[in-house]
Amino acid sequence: MSGTHQDTGDRAVVLVDEDARAWRPATARSRFREGLTGPTAGVAAGHTQVNLISVPADWAYEMLLFCTRNPKPCPVLDVTDAGAWTTVLADGADLRTDLPRYRVWRDGELVEEPTDVRAHWRDDLVTFLIGCSFTFEWALSRAGVPIRHVEQGRNVPMYVTGRPCRPAGRLRGPTVVPMRPVPPRYLSAAIRETALLPAVHGGPVHCGDPSALGIADLSRPDFGDAVEPEPDDIPVFWACGVTPQAVVMASRPPFALTHAPGQMFITDERDERYRVV
Amino acid sequence: MSGTHQDTGDRAVVLVDEDARAWRPATARSRFREGLTGPTAGVAAGHTQVNLISVPADWAYEMLLFCTRNPKPCPVLDVTDAGAWTTVLADGADLRTDLPRYRVWRDGELVEEPTDVRAHWRDDLVTFLIGCSFTFEWALSRAGVPIRHVEQGRNVPMYVTGRPCRPAGRLRGPTVVPMRPVPPRYLSAAIRETALLPAVHGGPVHCGDPSALGIADLSRPDFGDAVEPEPDDIPVFWACGVTPQAVVMASRPPFALTHAPGQMFITDERDERYRVV
Repeated sequence: MSGTHQDTGDRAVVLVDEDARAWRPATARSRFREGLTGPTAGVAAGHTQVNLISVPADWAYEMLLFCTRNPKPCPVLDVTDAGAWTTVLADGADLRTDLPRYRVWRDGELVEEPTDVRAHWRDDLVTFLIGCSFTFEWALSRAGVPIRHVEQGRNVPMYVTGRPCRPAGRLRGPTVVPMRPVPPRYLSAAIRETALLPAVHGGPVHCGDPSALGIADLSRPDFGDAVEPEPDDIPVFWACGVTPQAVVMASRPPFALTHAPGQMFITDERDERYRVV
Repeated sequence: MSGTHQDTGDRAVVLVDEDARAWRPATARSRFREGLTGPTAGVAAGHTQVNLISVPADWAYEMLLFCTRNPKPCPVLDVTDAGAWTTVLADGADLRTDLPRYRVWRDGELVEEPTDVRAHWRDDLVTFLIGCSFTFEWALSRAGVPIRHVEQGRNVPMYVTGRPCRPAGRLRGPTVVPMRPVPPRYLSAAIRETALLPAVHGGPVHCGDPSALGIADLSRPDFGDAVEPEPDDIPVFWACGVTPQAVVMASRPPFALTHAPGQMFITDERDERYRVV
């Protein structure tokens, strides 16, 4: 990570070195604030990473209601007051600068991918920090489940499904899911370990045939990188915190900021905090 | 239950008979719609009971944010659109009539406890259905944990604590907790079984000395009935869905409707649905 990775946008190649795994969250945030970019899988291992979406205050109720009605893709870990760029989840963090890369959305169109959004900030922005499936990778690893995309130095592949979320006011859109290939002997552990983390998407929404979710081709993800399964691996799909970005595209609010897929905000919280037992 | 109980307000004595335990949720709702009142612990056993609070639309965002920021006392299971009295959690239900007893609040003062709120209904009311610790009593029972207040035919005792919730806009207030005396040999099971149900308050907030929560006297609950512990029982405190009523009292919104403590709305959902594994 530390300056050695190549960033090619969505298809960024992450090279997480041992340094980046061992970073404290504040160190990771300051590196990103200084301009380092790239996927965050494995960075500051054991600390909770979150999805970010900021919307104008007159869309905040619908966003929060949308998240409440769709808790698997959108588990809310914090909501800021309007205009605030701080969060209880990360001491001293600045939500405008401390992510590796952002996306700026106007009328549902992606218009820019800056590494800093101070120039785009508005006093009426309410920011939602939403649980991320990267968090449960520590639990999968501890249970012995191989994480193929980390092994292969790639961003997790994510797919737009044919399953609509439950709408809230003007907000609607499909569920987005990451896929992790899981060897059959680890399937039960993968389901159990993630189910114990409901604040970060919980258990899978589907295992097996991708066409059941309306996914035509696993080799062509909508976000992130394709991953190579081993021969007997079963594709396992969780709900994904990129769902709000699909909702922005479908619902076209006049303005929104998000993180770039796979390039998350790293909090001070320990993943263990979100495990129910 | 079926007409045989005495209702004396907060100190209502519930006599749950086997009939009421076996009722289908729709049967329970129709009995309450016809005028039956009283605590609902044990009624339609195995089906999810919820707390209700309705606030005017201009308070809905702060209410939803309050719940999001305080998920242990206020886990939201559904939010209606403004003015709607239906919910996805209960087919054919009418939220204005189907609870045993309601409370009507004006400027934070309890002004009436009717069995039907059609006369008080407003087109701008947004209704929040919030998980209830009655739900996890099936899990406790199945694990062999005795439920003292049910054994004693009483409403669960609830206490206003000295622990403030995290505020949201104009809304603030203390955490309210029910107490269940648990024999030491069942303490571990009681913690584990409830932790697996995060959508209905999850694991305890405290075990043991009530003064740690600022509770002076267990024999004088703020809501519900005092319960007699057995000699070695440990008092165990969970977060409570009556918290929004304490918030109404502290924050004084111009108008609110709630259920009467212990007299819940019975949904069609099975408690099992909310267990994470």
